[in-house]
Amino acid sequence: MARPPVSLHALAAARGDVPADILLKGGRVLSPATREWVTTDLAIADGVVVGWGERDAHEVINVDGASLVAGFVDAHMHLESSKLWVDEYVKAVLPNGTTAVAADPHEIANVAGLEGIRALVDAAEKMPFTFGVAASSCVPASPFESAGAAFSAADVKTIIDELGAIGVAEVMNYPAVINGDPMFRDIIASAGWRKVDGHAPGLRGRALDAYLSAGIESDHECFALDEAHEKRQKGMWVFLRQGSVCQDLLELLPTVLSHGPMCTAFCSDDREPDLLRDEGHINHCLRLAVEGGLNEIDALIVASFLPAMYHNFFHLGQLGPGYQADVAVFDTLQGFKPALVLQRGKVVARNGVIEPGAVPVLEAPQSLYNRVRLHHVPSAAELTIEEPTNGKARVIGVTSKTVRTKSLILDVSDEANDIARIAVVERHKATGRIGLAYVSGYGIERGAIASTVAHDAHNIMVVGARDASGPGDMSVAIARVAEMGGGQVVVVDGKVVAEVALPIAGLMSPKPLLEVAAEIDRVVEAARELGITLDAPFMALSFLGLSVIPDLRITDHGLIDVNQFAVIPVSL
Amino acid sequence: MARPPVSLHALAAARGDVPADILLKGGRVLSPATREWVTTDLAIADGVVVGWGERDAHEVINVDGASLVAGFVDAHMHLESSKLWVDEYVKAVLPNGTTAVAADPHEIANVAGLEGIRALVDAAEKMPFTFGVAASSCVPASPFESAGAAFSAADVKTIIDELGAIGVAEVMNYPAVINGDPMFRDIIASAGWRKVDGHAPGLRGRALDAYLSAGIESDHECFALDEAHEKRQKGMWVFLRQGSVCQDLLELLPTVLSHGPMCTAFCSDDREPDLLRDEGHINHCLRLAVEGGLNEIDALIVASFLPAMYHNFFHLGQLGPGYQADVAVFDTLQGFKPALVLQRGKVVARNGVIEPGAVPVLEAPQSLYNRVRLHHVPSAAELTIEEPTNGKARVIGVTSKTVRTKSLILDVSDEANDIARIAVVERHKATGRIGLAYVSGYGIERGAIASTVAHDAHNIMVVGARDASGPGDMSVAIARVAEMGGGQVVVVDGKVVAEVALPIAGLMSPKPLLEVAAEIDRVVEAARELGITLDAPFMALSFLGLSVIPDLRITDHGLIDVNQFAVIPVSL
Repeated sequence: MARPPVSLHALAAARGDVPADILLKGGRVLSPATREWVTTDLAIADGVVVGWGERDAHEVINVDGASLVAGFVDAHMHLESSKLWVDEYVKAVLPNGTTAVAADPHEIANVAGLEGIRALVDAAEKMPFTFGVAASSCVPASPFESAGAAFSAADVKTIIDELGAIGVAEVMNYPAVINGDPMFRDIIASAGWRKVDGHAPGLRGRALDAYLSAGIESDHECFALDEAHEKRQKGMWVFLRQGSVCQDLLELLPTVLSHGPMCTAFCSDDREPDLLRDEGHINHCLRLAVEGGLNEIDALIVASFLPAMYHNFFHLGQLGPGYQADVAVFDTLQGFKPALVLQRGKVVARNGVIEPGAVPVLEAPQSLYNRVRLHHVPSAAELTIEEPTNGKARVIGVTSKTVRTKSLILDVSDEANDIARIAVVERHKATGRIGLAYVSGYGIERGAIASTVAHDAHNIMVVGARDASGPGDMSVAIARVAEMGGGQVVVVDGKVVAEVALPIAGLMSPKPLLEVAAEIDRVVEAARELGITLDAPFMALSFLGLSVIPDLRITDHGLIDVNQFAVIPVSL
Repeated sequence: MARPPVSLHALAAARGDVPADILLKGGRVLSPATREWVTTDLAIADGVVVGWGERDAHEVINVDGASLVAGFVDAHMHLESSKLWVDEYVKAVLPNGTTAVAADPHEIANVAGLEGIRALVDAAEKMPFTFGVAASSCVPASPFESAGAAFSAADVKTIIDELGAIGVAEVMNYPAVINGDPMFRDIIASAGWRKVDGHAPGLRGRALDAYLSAGIESDHECFALDEAHEKRQKGMWVFLRQGSVCQDLLELLPTVLSHGPMCTAFCSDDREPDLLRDEGHINHCLRLAVEGGLNEIDALIVASFLPAMYHNFFHLGQLGPGYQADVAVFDTLQGFKPALVLQRGKVVARNGVIEPGAVPVLEAPQSLYNRVRLHHVPSAAELTIEEPTNGKARVIGVTSKTVRTKSLILDVSDEANDIARIAVVERHKATGRIGLAYVSGYGIERGAIASTVAHDAHNIMVVGARDASGPGDMSVAIARVAEMGGGQVVVVDGKVVAEVALPIAGLMSPKPLLEVAAEIDRVVEAARELGITLDAPFMALSFLGLSVIPDLRITDHGLIDVNQFAVIPVSL
């Protein structure tokens, strides 16, 4: 990812021997190194900035008084959380000024392995966008998850050496890293000169020292200010995350306010369609940071210069001659809504709207479709958990605003305990394996909801009412997501009342952002009508299988005590 | 140059499962990212920092209240200017806190080609030092210089791919770069993800835009503040240089004072033995910068964190866990004289003195000796220039404090014009080629001085008195430097009165710094006794053949008008 050689035409335009292609005239350009706005025209040829100051150009765009900054770079994200395929994702974020991301494709990797990552890389190459793909390092997240693929260290090396990955994506299995697990030593070494991203919520002190010693270089999982500050002191890059679930930006911002922005970056991690639609992307992070007291220049540096530096996007992050002409043009920095976005010297968005034809239509390869492979649709009887003999059982406790769960012991017959049924159905290899358990805190009174988006293995997760109708509706819900090749559904009285089809790997829709977001709004509304009180019923569901976040999870192997790192029985 | 994997022992020490090797106890550690001093013990195992805070350790070094910073990194230097071989150079700079350099070996490359660079790389590997070698890009500096080697783009690629160069060293031929010369396009592309250093004194505006567009990333040749500031604004790294000849640090410092240190670094470029002895190394830059008003933290960041970042010395520049334990320990930051220097976790210097045995004795390979290869020693007659018919001739005008020369037309018989004889004798391929001309400004009244250190081709340069004795003394001087296999001599009345042997490639001595510096003091004193008034007679001489610095130079091809880029006659 070194700065690619410029064309001889661009060089001639730089010298002033021939006119530039475009001149952005009358604005001011951010200089990240000197932290100042420089009043200058900006000349572009063959997709790169070729000069500052007055020039001849074939096309002059007057940007009188506008502020020009390098396109924003998302330091860590998962495309799949947007539920959009690559083209629609790019169309969704370009109007917000984002022109590059560092993507960890570990959702699609869990479903479709190397083939899934290759599909993403192939699609990304066709986009007017820098879609850096990192090598997912923890597929599956744990031995308790039945994913569609399992990556060895050799696979990670293949993704780097053959698919051109930008580095190693979040190394979530920090206990293994800290303990010197040979596979993770190999994975980290395979990065070579590239970056190795971490994932270490709450890690401090000696455990952090060991994690860093092993070669991890960044973290986007800090949730506490002093944690983030310790990590920065010790040389770790800290990403300020504002996603749909985890929103740490304002908590962590004071370390930037008091100690400057060096070695920080904004990231979105997981941004659902509604958040992308309602708040935008990295420009949302900028708004929050500036509202939180950060000066505009530092905020912009955190939004593009620093993440570009971290990820070795050598050609991005600033607008000096030789840099790729990814330009966000702001009539006002208020709200950080760009009036114009250029990518590689071409206008791709105006006033929040993607330019017609700027982004080619892409279809996801057929190999990513039909990825819900069931042995059979489980019957109501198969989804009916055996009642505990004394009434008490281990129950997953969920609440809004956190993806952590509690390990509860409750009387599952007591209505006051807000008990629901939960099941996980393996969907990659048609094993027929089903995990059954109880969950508390959903508020579901009737019907069922199901989803094939279920971190990280993305098996079918389904929650149903505690009463006798639950298992039947759960079975209908499973049948419907299977029929759609993946998605999210709400079932009542044996009928599907709302659904989102996510036929690309069971994770993504081929439709545009606004359609997908509207469909999701509808399934959430329908879920509310089942009595569900949880803030984000499907998002909460999607994390209940993630066997690396404490305390209690469920996979197709059954209940997982994350702290013991073991399968445990539902009954006591 | 990614951070190498730590040992399992280091990882265990990081976890606290086994004692660390060393604990530096009771100090405060600089955190470059947060710009603060953190009071903490520092644990080291197997050469890397493994933890912050109290630990068990096999050896505890009390550094009560000391300031611990990562070893300094020289962002751009030429070993050969120190006139020391690698081991003696390392012994000279380690006590000053420097533990890494980015070396451009273009002097030895001009003499001994790839073989010379390989010798340097081999030697560097044996040192307790990070001796990063960049690929010299302009060998020879111009077609008017007869060097011992000529590098093609393929040679540069070989140095990067096979010898592990850290990038492309200063691309001095900026007109060729700006004009899109294919060889230089290939050379720049060969860097891949590594850095491409520039050399562009005074380059501004469109020419700078083109130079940057072509892929150049840094410059150490800025001489004016507004020039440096323009370069920084446009995304170029600017190195603040304090060498023996060029001393730009204080001129350029205000851009750092007013706009922060991002994308700057200190460098020494060419540091002669006397300056190394008298003022030290990067710690001298630190002293000057702090005296010039820079705060200590920013100064230290410019001295190690930023150059390490620039050069992709991923394992250097800070003292977080996982970073190489190159530590400069300061009882007081006043004067920046380290009480203790550790390299890779071993104490290598105390109170300015190298630790006995810390640096292995290295001999330069025999292939670098006997590198003065003359067709014959030119006689006095051969060194006698034909007198101009009308008395007037083109004369090289030299003055102190600058390496630029003037192109003068003077009456060479007029004693008021301070005329001396100058000759260049080709010494690599025994061609017998000699260039003869006049120089004004030396003040030499009798005798001759000669040197095989003569940028960049390093042929023998000799200056002799204008009177009839001059050519004879010049011949004796040439004979003596040839006999020594290179060096610098002063001759009066046919006798050598002082000399420095530089038998390694005709550029370096195998002796230690203090001996070499003393020998150089003596030749300079002896030169003074010839009446020479110029500040640095040998250093000035060494630049008179550098055919890429305006205005008038001399090579074995004769007088070079640098502005016309052509050989021109001495006579009018």
